[in-house]
Amino acid sequence: MITRLSTLFLRTLREDPADAEVPSHRLLVRAGYVRRVAPGVYSWLPLGLRVLRNIEAVVRREMDAIGAQEILFPALLPREPYQATGRWTEYGANLFRLRDRKGADYLLGPTHEELFTLTVKGELSSYKDYPVILYQIQTKYRDEERPRAGILRGREFLMKDSYSFDLSDQGLRHSYQLHRDAYVKIFNRLGLRYVIVSAVSGAMGGSASEEFLAEVETGEDTFVRSTESGYAANVEAVITPAPPARPVEDLPPAQVLHTPRTPTIDTLVDHLNKAGLGRTFTAADTLKNVMVKIRQPGAQDWQLLGVGIPGDREVDPKRLAASLDPADVALLDDADFAAHAFLVKGYIGPGALAAHGVRYLVDPRVVPGTAWVTGADRSDHHVVDLVCGRDFIPDGTIEAAEVRAGDPSPDGAGTLVAARGIEIGHIFQLGRKYTDAFALDALGPDGKPIRITMGCYGIGVSRLVAAIAEQSHDQHGLVWPREVAPADVHIVVAGKDETVRATGEQLAVDLDSAGVRVILDDRTATPGVKFADAELIGVPTIVVVGRGLASGVVEVKDRATAERTEVPVDGAVAHLQELCRK
Amino acid sequence: MITRLSTLFLRTLREDPADAEVPSHRLLVRAGYVRRVAPGVYSWLPLGLRVLRNIEAVVRREMDAIGAQEILFPALLPREPYQATGRWTEYGANLFRLRDRKGADYLLGPTHEELFTLTVKGELSSYKDYPVILYQIQTKYRDEERPRAGILRGREFLMKDSYSFDLSDQGLRHSYQLHRDAYVKIFNRLGLRYVIVSAVSGAMGGSASEEFLAEVETGEDTFVRSTESGYAANVEAVITPAPPARPVEDLPPAQVLHTPRTPTIDTLVDHLNKAGLGRTFTAADTLKNVMVKIRQPGAQDWQLLGVGIPGDREVDPKRLAASLDPADVALLDDADFAAHAFLVKGYIGPGALAAHGVRYLVDPRVVPGTAWVTGADRSDHHVVDLVCGRDFIPDGTIEAAEVRAGDPSPDGAGTLVAARGIEIGHIFQLGRKYTDAFALDALGPDGKPIRITMGCYGIGVSRLVAAIAEQSHDQHGLVWPREVAPADVHIVVAGKDETVRATGEQLAVDLDSAGVRVILDDRTATPGVKFADAELIGVPTIVVVGRGLASGVVEVKDRATAERTEVPVDGAVAHLQELCRK
Repeated sequence: MITRLSTLFLRTLREDPADAEVPSHRLLVRAGYVRRVAPGVYSWLPLGLRVLRNIEAVVRREMDAIGAQEILFPALLPREPYQATGRWTEYGANLFRLRDRKGADYLLGPTHEELFTLTVKGELSSYKDYPVILYQIQTKYRDEERPRAGILRGREFLMKDSYSFDLSDQGLRHSYQLHRDAYVKIFNRLGLRYVIVSAVSGAMGGSASEEFLAEVETGEDTFVRSTESGYAANVEAVITPAPPARPVEDLPPAQVLHTPRTPTIDTLVDHLNKAGLGRTFTAADTLKNVMVKIRQPGAQDWQLLGVGIPGDREVDPKRLAASLDPADVALLDDADFAAHAFLVKGYIGPGALAAHGVRYLVDPRVVPGTAWVTGADRSDHHVVDLVCGRDFIPDGTIEAAEVRAGDPSPDGAGTLVAARGIEIGHIFQLGRKYTDAFALDALGPDGKPIRITMGCYGIGVSRLVAAIAEQSHDQHGLVWPREVAPADVHIVVAGKDETVRATGEQLAVDLDSAGVRVILDDRTATPGVKFADAELIGVPTIVVVGRGLASGVVEVKDRATAERTEVPVDGAVAHLQELCRK
Repeated sequence: MITRLSTLFLRTLREDPADAEVPSHRLLVRAGYVRRVAPGVYSWLPLGLRVLRNIEAVVRREMDAIGAQEILFPALLPREPYQATGRWTEYGANLFRLRDRKGADYLLGPTHEELFTLTVKGELSSYKDYPVILYQIQTKYRDEERPRAGILRGREFLMKDSYSFDLSDQGLRHSYQLHRDAYVKIFNRLGLRYVIVSAVSGAMGGSASEEFLAEVETGEDTFVRSTESGYAANVEAVITPAPPARPVEDLPPAQVLHTPRTPTIDTLVDHLNKAGLGRTFTAADTLKNVMVKIRQPGAQDWQLLGVGIPGDREVDPKRLAASLDPADVALLDDADFAAHAFLVKGYIGPGALAAHGVRYLVDPRVVPGTAWVTGADRSDHHVVDLVCGRDFIPDGTIEAAEVRAGDPSPDGAGTLVAARGIEIGHIFQLGRKYTDAFALDALGPDGKPIRITMGCYGIGVSRLVAAIAEQSHDQHGLVWPREVAPADVHIVVAGKDETVRATGEQLAVDLDSAGVRVILDDRTATPGVKFADAELIGVPTIVVVGRGLASGVVEVKDRATAERTEVPVDGAVAHLQELCRK
């Protein structure tokens, strides 16, 4: 079917929408793909819906190819299953909650782990029924605090979520790998530039987890990558390479120094370098002890925790929280310090912590045999040459220090650089959190129950429209990869001459018969307006039917490269068919 | 892709679900098509989702064919547009309402008139942009008081809703006719038996309106049809044929009779027939005056209304309400009677109503020249031979009396019979209710605004799955029309013999390559279990690969007719391909 701009429900805008922060939002609105209905809630106009459906089709094809079976859950869900797993409350304000006319509690599904688990429990019973992978492409709801960037972070959005159910950890790893391979195929087909980063999991609980991030400067997610290898990871997932432990023998003894007026690491280093100790200190030689308190899930009480990191780095709150997950973590307040008088603020050292049974975790760089300048647990005093493994024994290590550009890559190749991206996919070995909650067992060959283990795997389908637009546009408009474009060819009828009009019309009809998806600009607008709209809409191939006709040619322009070719009218259909087949 | 029952996420049930009232619900659950999540909220399992998508595809094709353009609105909608049209409150308890984290009011869309109107207003401006037809196939929400019959009346359901926008009433009639024709094609392709009934519109306001009702005995909607013509109508839409008016001259004068102990029409008729008046009376000779009160939209006060209908009929509250729509209507209570002492309960006549300025509407059978027995406005007294047009002049007519089997058909051909159905489609000339509310105008050729007129048109897509199942099943299970079936051919591998298995497998592969959609029952279950499941699942063609192989044949069974044919293995693919093409 030919899409005629004379009747298409489309109005392009010359001006950027006032609330648009990022290019995809700006262009998807200007080109008439989406319209805002409420914060984070959008309508899809005809061209936008086509792109969305094209992406959906790619996702569906690759999911079917790994034997995943499509089902469809409602978005309106009863409270009970989410109550059973604790997510009714855990989700906090992110959950849209409502009551029906009888006063029963419902929610709009943010993810469907509970429903998938219960449904499998309802249908399957024997070990012979496993493994199974189920998926849906379905509308989800999250009451984001700050919906932003149009459809990039919406409150109503389309997701593909799949779940694998396996009898064993080995089976789960296989299902995980199937998804990983399928995701690579999907994102490659969609023409995306992306990285796969190690991720730590959020509220979902579990172990192995990777994120697919589309590389976009305006992305919300930060990650680091190696300058030399393919290594990439969420900042939360970066493992600090630890230096080898060194022997503690023959190291100088620790000595306590009077260090007045050294409230900061810088002033302390400065003081030490002027103290005539015969060597030069840097901030990296100091050990900063940050006091926090943590509370395990379900626990009432907070526990003190000391976190020791090299003084040249700050604590990264996200890395600290990820390392301590699922426990809550908070900095100590004045009341906490008052309650623990042995904590000499500004001069806390490992000694007082050990003496009072406070757990003490250190940065992985703090290995046995390393010597540190740190607090002496006495006002205005620090200790120098305090040796790990000799003068103090930490209770373990923790990834809490910030990751910096230039840090060595954990895989040993190159150094790390920071980058930004948009999360477009997430794969996750969820384990038995939900199967435990709902007692999902298979009856084994020996008649004994086998607790099922799960994986969960998401793709942000509507977000992908924006992610692709973010990566694929220029100053004139959108530049769609052919696989997702709302059409293959955009014919601009440039001129009011009857021959021009009739030729454009015939070309559209012939291309349509040949299975090429055509937009025909048959409006009465000026060629200038039509060219601008063609660039803005971003179909991969633009054909101009106009002055060239005098010499029997039409102009074929590649939207991405701006390359122009003159093609004889007679051979245009064959030429374009060939282009679209690529 | 071959659907293998050995791995398909499907468990058929031998027992009917406890809550199933109607065959479609029973069978869709037993055959593993849908599962209940909450009252009126269902999940679609793989086979059910396929049927749903097949129906969706038929609907989409025919909508596209009339030039309708597909868009997609969110389900989560802000309150404001619905506030503007009054529907935020009018919908009452049927509307799912919720608040977001910032306290803003939202609803889950029950229909999208407001959004469509606002979107068209946002995009179009000139008369040249019209007419336009937009549609979506989208999940809708209604908090039904009594969700019932599985997916037949759910609270979350899939609908196709389209809206036409025209410059003139004539344009609207054309858009309406386009939809009517498309609906006929859609429901014919889906193999449905249905009638198109004249309907009066409910809360949506407007004029011409027809419903498509699938004829099903268990249906919720009642309608009447002619025994002889194609006439069919909602009971609310039946127009009572009026007899011709007669001259009032020469009719006997009215006389008031003492009629003690005649509390009912029967006792009154009995009394009259024993009163020696020289003729025989029936209930149809009496005129029963029912007092109601009505309140116009937005009004504070109730107004009295007298409704006169022949005494052999009851008032049908739905017909009464439809006739008075959009006003509210209620029966008088004791306090009302007390406040209006001129109303002599049981003996109310036209006289007192006229004397006190009470509006009085009568059944269309009450034409000038007809003589009635009715109340004399005096306890224990009735009046005989009170002639319409001579002794009383009604303020108009009203369709309030019940419609009965045997009543003459309004089109003059045959009499009416009652029938039941399921509403599967509704087309409606909505007019300017929403374009007035949002001031949707097009700029006319003369520079003057033209108020747009709308039509709205719905198809219950998920309900159609149930409606088809209701019409197409037998005691063994579902019987899908090929167009919507989850597969074309269901191969039963009946036997554990390796040749049987390999032949079934090869047949499945060959059919799949030939573009035939195949379910292969490759489970280890007994042939009996497999046959039963094949019947239950209801794919149109069942192929049994089993004992016949010894003589080189497979058995091809038509699910609907139960006709069996033996087909040589070699020719099976060609034979089945031919079957599926029909």
